Amino acid sequence: MLNVGLLGAGRIAGVHASAISTNPGSRLVAVSDINADAAAKLAAQYGAEARETDAILQDPAIRAVLIATSTDTHSDLIERAVAAGKAVLCEKPVDLSLSRAQACQKAMAGKPVMIGFNRRFDPNFAALKTALDAGEIGKPELLSITSFDPAPPPVSYIKVSGGLFRDMMIHDFDMANFLMGSAPVLVSAVGSSIVDPAIGTAGDVDTAVVTLTYADGRLAVIKNSRRAVYGYDQRVELLGSEGLLQAQNMLENTVVKSTTAGVTGAKPTYFFLERYMPAYALEWAGFVAALAEGKPLPVTLDDGVAALAMAEAATQSLKSGAPVALG
Amino acid sequence: MLNVGLLGAGRIAGVHASAISTNPGSRLVAVSDINADAAAKLAAQYGAEARETDAILQDPAIRAVLIATSTDTHSDLIERAVAAGKAVLCEKPVDLSLSRAQACQKAMAGKPVMIGFNRRFDPNFAALKTALDAGEIGKPELLSITSFDPAPPPVSYIKVSGGLFRDMMIHDFDMANFLMGSAPVLVSAVGSSIVDPAIGTAGDVDTAVVTLTYADGRLAVIKNSRRAVYGYDQRVELLGSEGLLQAQNMLENTVVKSTTAGVTGAKPTYFFLERYMPAYALEWAGFVAALAEGKPLPVTLDDGVAALAMAEAATQSLKSGAPVALG
Amino acid sequence: MLNVGLLGAGRIAGVHASAISTNPGSRLVAVSDINADAAAKLAAQYGAEARETDAILQDPAIRAVLIATSTDTHSDLIERAVAAGKAVLCEKPVDLSLSRAQACQKAMAGKPVMIGFNRRFDPNFAALKTALDAGEIGKPELLSITSFDPAPPPVSYIKVSGGLFRDMMIHDFDMANFLMGSAPVLVSAVGSSIVDPAIGTAGDVDTAVVTLTYADGRLAVIKNSRRAVYGYDQRVELLGSEGLLQAQNMLENTVVKSTTAGVTGAKPTYFFLERYMPAYALEWAGFVAALAEGKPLPVTLDDGVAALAMAEAATQSLKSGAPVALG
Amino acid sequence: MLNVGLLGAGRIAGVHASAISTNPGSRLVAVSDINADAAAKLAAQYGAEARETDAILQDPAIRAVLIATSTDTHSDLIERAVAAGKAVLCEKPVDLSLSRAQACQKAMAGKPVMIGFNRRFDPNFAALKTALDAGEIGKPELLSITSFDPAPPPVSYIKVSGGLFRDMMIHDFDMANFLMGSAPVLVSAVGSSIVDPAIGTAGDVDTAVVTLTYADGRLAVIKNSRRAVYGYDQRVELLGSEGLLQAQNMLENTVVKSTTAGVTGAKPTYFFLERYMPAYALEWAGFVAALAEGKPLPVTLDDGVAALAMAEAATQSLKSGAPVALG
Repeated sequence: MLNVGLLGAGRIAGVHASAISTNPGSRLVAVSDINADAAAKLAAQYGAEARETDAILQDPAIRAVLIATSTDTHSDLIERAVAAGKAVLCEKPVDLSLSRAQACQKAMAGKPVMIGFNRRFDPNFAALKTALDAGEIGKPELLSITSFDPAPPPVSYIKVSGGLFRDMMIHDFDMANFLMGSAPVLVSAVGSSIVDPAIGTAGDVDTAVVTLTYADGRLAVIKNSRRAVYGYDQRVELLGSEGLLQAQNMLENTVVKSTTAGVTGAKPTYFFLERYMPAYALEWAGFVAALAEGKPLPVTLDDGVAALAMAEAATQSLKSGAPVALG
Repeated sequence: MLNVGLLGAGRIAGVHASAISTNPGSRLVAVSDINADAAAKLAAQYGAEARETDAILQDPAIRAVLIATSTDTHSDLIERAVAAGKAVLCEKPVDLSLSRAQACQKAMAGKPVMIGFNRRFDPNFAALKTALDAGEIGKPELLSITSFDPAPPPVSYIKVSGGLFRDMMIHDFDMANFLMGSAPVLVSAVGSSIVDPAIGTAGDVDTAVVTLTYADGRLAVIKNSRRAVYGYDQRVELLGSEGLLQAQNMLENTVVKSTTAGVTGAKPTYFFLERYMPAYALEWAGFVAALAEGKPLPVTLDDGVAALAMAEAATQSLKSGAPVALG
Repeated sequence: MLNVGLLGAGRIAGVHASAISTNPGSRLVAVSDINADAAAKLAAQYGAEARETDAILQDPAIRAVLIATSTDTHSDLIERAVAAGKAVLCEKPVDLSLSRAQACQKAMAGKPVMIGFNRRFDPNFAALKTALDAGEIGKPELLSITSFDPAPPPVSYIKVSGGLFRDMMIHDFDMANFLMGSAPVLVSAVGSSIVDPAIGTAGDVDTAVVTLTYADGRLAVIKNSRRAVYGYDQRVELLGSEGLLQAQNMLENTVVKSTTAGVTGAKPTYFFLERYMPAYALEWAGFVAALAEGKPLPVTLDDGVAALAMAEAATQSLKSGAPVALG
Repeated sequence: MLNVGLLGAGRIAGVHASAISTNPGSRLVAVSDINADAAAKLAAQYGAEARETDAILQDPAIRAVLIATSTDTHSDLIERAVAAGKAVLCEKPVDLSLSRAQACQKAMAGKPVMIGFNRRFDPNFAALKTALDAGEIGKPELLSITSFDPAPPPVSYIKVSGGLFRDMMIHDFDMANFLMGSAPVLVSAVGSSIVDPAIGTAGDVDTAVVTLTYADGRLAVIKNSRRAVYGYDQRVELLGSEGLLQAQNMLENTVVKSTTAGVTGAKPTYFFLERYMPAYALEWAGFVAALAEGKPLPVTLDDGVAALAMAEAATQSLKSGAPVALG
């Protein structure tokens, strides 16, 4: 049984608390948050204690921590938790600063740190990956990722988000790395603030297309929009030498209505909590199982830094109007 | 080159005229109709002549006739055409009277008479049959046919139609025979005039379900409605020991729209002309090819009588409220 | 907080234990089973106690019991639990004997007894019902229910099951009642043991079609098979005066593979645990919410008896070969 | 009745001959080809005459010509036919040389010359356009075009094709112009010869992604591959402020097979003849109707030059590795 401390008590921490409690191999022992009330409430819900972060890190009975605090604290908390001997699962991104993330990566080399790229555990994307690895479409050649949010966040959020590429497309960069098995050599971005000009005024884009070129000639294209009014649009397709694999959207239900107006089915699930709830549980299960079996963690700090480096490159490409080579 | 006379110049005759003219192995030579103007117009459109029916039957250069006249003339015209040495493709049904149809069947034994069950030639149903015959779902066990018209015909038509089972479900009875490869031993029908009470007043039903039981334990169910406001609903599904085969509807186009209201695609094609146009051409091609190659015609007078016998049994079952054994 | 006792510790009891524990309004206090080890294990998993059934029924702190024992104990346990002042959620069927179920129904009139027709809570069927009640397809006319299991149970199970109509199609009879809003007046069944002759030898069928006729002319057809090798096939479609509603299968994932062999997607979820897990949780939530709000329970003992009466009628119709009128 | 001369008797000319003959408003009078036998055979099939090209152009009874000869003759034949007073429908591209095409455009200003971008007439893309113009998804923001051939052409063809962008993606450039209603300001291409290295040796790519940036911030991305083993993959999707429109592939039939191996449907239609046969007929109907009604031709020489300019820009961008501004 893995005793777990949860750092953070916000919305996503609640999702993790449920996953930790439901998993038969782990137990939620303590929760901390800068908002003491939030920590107390979340802890009570799952029979755990609210504590200070330090108290959690110093408790030898707690063997793992899940970091679900604000992004600017991730690197520090990873390093402190590892220094205290804990295994770590940290929400993405590692850091908004690539150099800080790289420093963390260097310091943590060989330590049990997993980064929360939950989409790798989505049953659909995971099944696509399994089929790909089984050679069902031969050699991959051209990857397409469609990733649209249902509605843009407030401009206040945009301003501290690090920008579309670090905040939103970073998941898609990791998905590309997950599926393609290596990093691209060239990143080229175009984008605009056509959904909301205020996002442009804040220095960001809300709609973007990034093309990735790989050393062996494979190509990938990622499309992001901050607004798809019909719901969370999360699709992947991969053309290979012997076929095409597509992971399509999850729908709210399977009901189809045929009338004089056409044949209408349900919308995609609304947003990431609806779509990726199973993925969060499977992500946690992967963490627990790897620790239990002494195997490598399924997503690493290297993966977190790799995706961040692509976000940085895309940000530069958007500014310069030219492709950017990855180191 | 097969020279062809067309008996009838109504709507369905026009469809056949196009198929005859387009087929590289046949040529439309003459058209007859009780409405001389209609015959003249249709003949002109395809470079043929308008003639009397007798003149067509007596022309030794015409080797085949297509009978697309009113149902009550079918049996007589089949017999006269065959007596004149023609090969015949006659629209379904053979006759509204089972005994008259059986007499025709007996008299025409061994003669080249094909009945126009065009749905056997629909590319979807034909592909399903091919997969079935290839053993792709093992042994068939349970057949379901959904067959809904977009809108009921006028009550005046209902009154002379012979009733839902002879007029509409007869196509589905033939489809069952086509797919199951033998006739059922028991026919059981329920029905009502829930779409339009006037249809009930006219002595018919507009909604019906018929179950068929086969000697070896296989089952089939056919559903008919005179009204599916979203279009012509023509589906077949067949459960077998190793899987399920479904032939789904043809849609007007492949456009899908996702909005806050849901995900909406196109309706099924509107009615039989839209849906079965390719089937009419393929039906004719099957007739021409069989004659050219000296092979058996792909649908026979026996098939026409078998379907009519099932319609008769269903009509009796509906009246008596009990299953009817087939002879 | 509703304290709950669980009677039974088998597979389906485990599903209910999870639903009870996960629901924020209820708590699993005790579990009983004739197999004491099974009760102890299940209780431990959710922090409850293993007790004798009597001890559970006599504990005043326990306000509700969930009955998930073998069918032959249902009626007795319902009556004993109600006598002890408990609210009851009992797995279907009420009893294999219609007269026993009716006696229970009479004795329990006005008491808080809910029957576990979990499919009413399936998000897909529930959404279909919502659309129907909102008038989205006008007036319902023709209902079709497809309900195939992935594989037949052992013949030993068949022998004690009460037969296909009481054991399997009873869910579909309830679905018909749920959607049509009233019981049919006529039930007509055909069936065979084409999947496994040994099932026929045991006096049962494995493949069946039942047609239902309603007083107002509406029709329904239910198809059952004990074997659909591709998975649990659970579909409903309902034709109305203004359209068609369909609830389609849930698939294992959304991945689609296109190769020279065709375009292949995932199979339906394998069986009822995979398909109806959300339905069990929502069923329990409906029970808890009704008790908390003092509202009528969403599925009643009357519903349980109504479905059983249809199963009885279908069993008779199959034997006699004639339609059976419902009381 | 529009009397038509057909220049060219190859495969695509055969498609046009059928469209001309079937259309009730036009008649195929004469066919020419450098291969006299081919011209004779095609003419005979449709009751027309084989003639020299000059004879066709000088025949005052012929009011329109369809140019389906090799690309290098298009500009010259357009100019000669217009000089002879004919209305012209010319296959794409106008010319492999942008400057030659522009010279032709300038010379032909105001003349009745239509370019054969048949995909605009595909019922699916046309329905998408209609929905877009009706405002069904609000303001368009992000267009995606997927356009994969089933198999690469011989390298000998690649060498004279003008390259992927002029030969294959030109259709997609026109589709972008058709849907977006204006030309982009920036074209950025990546590509590789991952399907067949011999295509790379021949100086071309077989897989490419092009991003288009519009002056108002809209974006588009076009993906091309010379090989999709499952068939001709021709899809468009367009994200707008109020929804998403998708035109999906046409499938060979609607049969779906469910087995233990999954749920398998038919492949997309194999190639452009199967997919776009209706589009060719509708393209011709649009030409005939515009002439008959004295309206502007639905696709113009300007459209042909605009697409060619984008192909030229993409070719440059691929070479330079930097985006190219459109004039």
